[in-house]
Amino acid sequence: MTSQTSTPQHSKPAGPVSVIGLGPMGLALAETLLDRGHSLTVWNRTPTRADDLVARGARRAPTAADAVAASPVTVVCLKDYATLYDVLDPAAAVLADSFLVNLNSGTPDEARTAADWAAGHGAGYLDGAIMVPPPLVGEPGAVFLYSGARDAFDRHRDALATLGDPRYLGTDPGLAVLHNAALLTMMYATMNGWLHATALVGSAGVTATGFAELALGWFMPAVVDPASLLAQAPDLDRSHYPGDLGTMEMNLNALEHIAHTSAEQGVHTEQPLLMRDIARRAVAEGHGEQNYLALFEVFKKALPAV
Amino acid sequence: MTSQTSTPQHSKPAGPVSVIGLGPMGLALAETLLDRGHSLTVWNRTPTRADDLVARGARRAPTAADAVAASPVTVVCLKDYATLYDVLDPAAAVLADSFLVNLNSGTPDEARTAADWAAGHGAGYLDGAIMVPPPLVGEPGAVFLYSGARDAFDRHRDALATLGDPRYLGTDPGLAVLHNAALLTMMYATMNGWLHATALVGSAGVTATGFAELALGWFMPAVVDPASLLAQAPDLDRSHYPGDLGTMEMNLNALEHIAHTSAEQGVHTEQPLLMRDIARRAVAEGHGEQNYLALFEVFKKALPAV
Repeated sequence: MTSQTSTPQHSKPAGPVSVIGLGPMGLALAETLLDRGHSLTVWNRTPTRADDLVARGARRAPTAADAVAASPVTVVCLKDYATLYDVLDPAAAVLADSFLVNLNSGTPDEARTAADWAAGHGAGYLDGAIMVPPPLVGEPGAVFLYSGARDAFDRHRDALATLGDPRYLGTDPGLAVLHNAALLTMMYATMNGWLHATALVGSAGVTATGFAELALGWFMPAVVDPASLLAQAPDLDRSHYPGDLGTMEMNLNALEHIAHTSAEQGVHTEQPLLMRDIARRAVAEGHGEQNYLALFEVFKKALPAV
Repeated sequence: MTSQTSTPQHSKPAGPVSVIGLGPMGLALAETLLDRGHSLTVWNRTPTRADDLVARGARRAPTAADAVAASPVTVVCLKDYATLYDVLDPAAAVLADSFLVNLNSGTPDEARTAADWAAGHGAGYLDGAIMVPPPLVGEPGAVFLYSGARDAFDRHRDALATLGDPRYLGTDPGLAVLHNAALLTMMYATMNGWLHATALVGSAGVTATGFAELALGWFMPAVVDPASLLAQAPDLDRSHYPGDLGTMEMNLNALEHIAHTSAEQGVHTEQPLLMRDIARRAVAEGHGEQNYLALFEVFKKALPAV
């Protein structure tokens, strides 16, 4: 994986960009490009969504094809891949030599299929994922993940850097949305852990604020800080799970206690029960004397169909 | 919740302490007390476990009752509550005016029952949870959680501070093990999120080390850092979940994508499916237009029996 950082270039003239799709995110992208001096062409199925942008100097394209033809790079921000095809199939005649940066949500296979579709029309294609909500587009710390055509990414890096720090992940067009899903699942798991833990102590009258002092002010930074996990990542790559400082069996025992305690205190139990079951499976698959990271071996496998 | 920090007092004479139970953790406790100059009496069912301690100046008690009688504070570190009663019921005659600090694992109800049992014998009782593995007992950063008799905690704080930073959580004796369960469930949820996310990108050939640079070097500190969650804790206390910057419906949509992507990539799906189902329940219970923290309302409730 390559992570590269760029900052917006304010000192040289910003090139023309088209934006197709003016929902809340598409509007934020268009406004940011306009604010930073790009010559902007926009298209939206409901044309009035562009009124404010046009008042500020953007050009309203009469058709999506016109928008694609107007600029060397077209940012597409539609609802989903089906909408992408609906909007751009009628523009097939102008797609040759165009460059599409597609930012809608979807799965890696949908991104790969869209890249093939674009290639079939002679268009360059970069798939992306926006890692900030609309109000933070273009702000410091905004990160955009991209995957697909490397040469086009490099050629249009300045326009992309206007929107946020562009990180290129590889030529497989599915990598951006795949990383997006992975980062978000990590975020949700952490949030769910915090919320369930807070509900658990709340059952004994402890406030969320009081618990947060201990859990977030001390425990998480001391025990589960990203830097300590980062240092353990190479062990995952070589399936190296020494149990000297704690075994899966010991962690399973703790997870049994947590599930039991959640039931006893009358709070939600599904999340600790699932974590217990996953640890049980790791033990059943022979990882009992290894450390907790051996759970990685369980997560790599699809469950058998039920 | 009260979080108080003490450092071991090396400058004044350390008082007598007894330790009952010399498993790996009990041994670490006893060695630390001995190293810091406490007069130490120990008892273990298999007496030879104390040989090294005795060689270094500890006194071997012939019975558990003798150990309790020998010191104003007795640290108990046995396998579970059943073992506690097995070992200390025969010592009932000397429990009056003794002070027991019990550090075995268990549920809040087991801790409360043990406190009642101790009170019935006229003993002071503090329940605790040790938040470090044995090699880190007594080291900087070692934290011990305590709940139960406040006066006894204050009176014996110096001895407790020898073992690690003692944090007093309240008079309900169940609070220490409850907090222990809550902190660990948060830790496991975060670890599981990281491991599942790593498996997800791994399905496209991305290394754990490469993903960690993005996930742990940038994303987690930027997006899910403990300080930002800490700032949101008061919202949980007042059930205040404004959806202005993102709604449960939007998060559910992302969770549907993550579950779909996990299946498409052929990795484990139970964890994202459960997170999706919990978010679906939040929507079904009327939290669709609130933000993701409204999941707290779901976690506070036991599931209906199935």
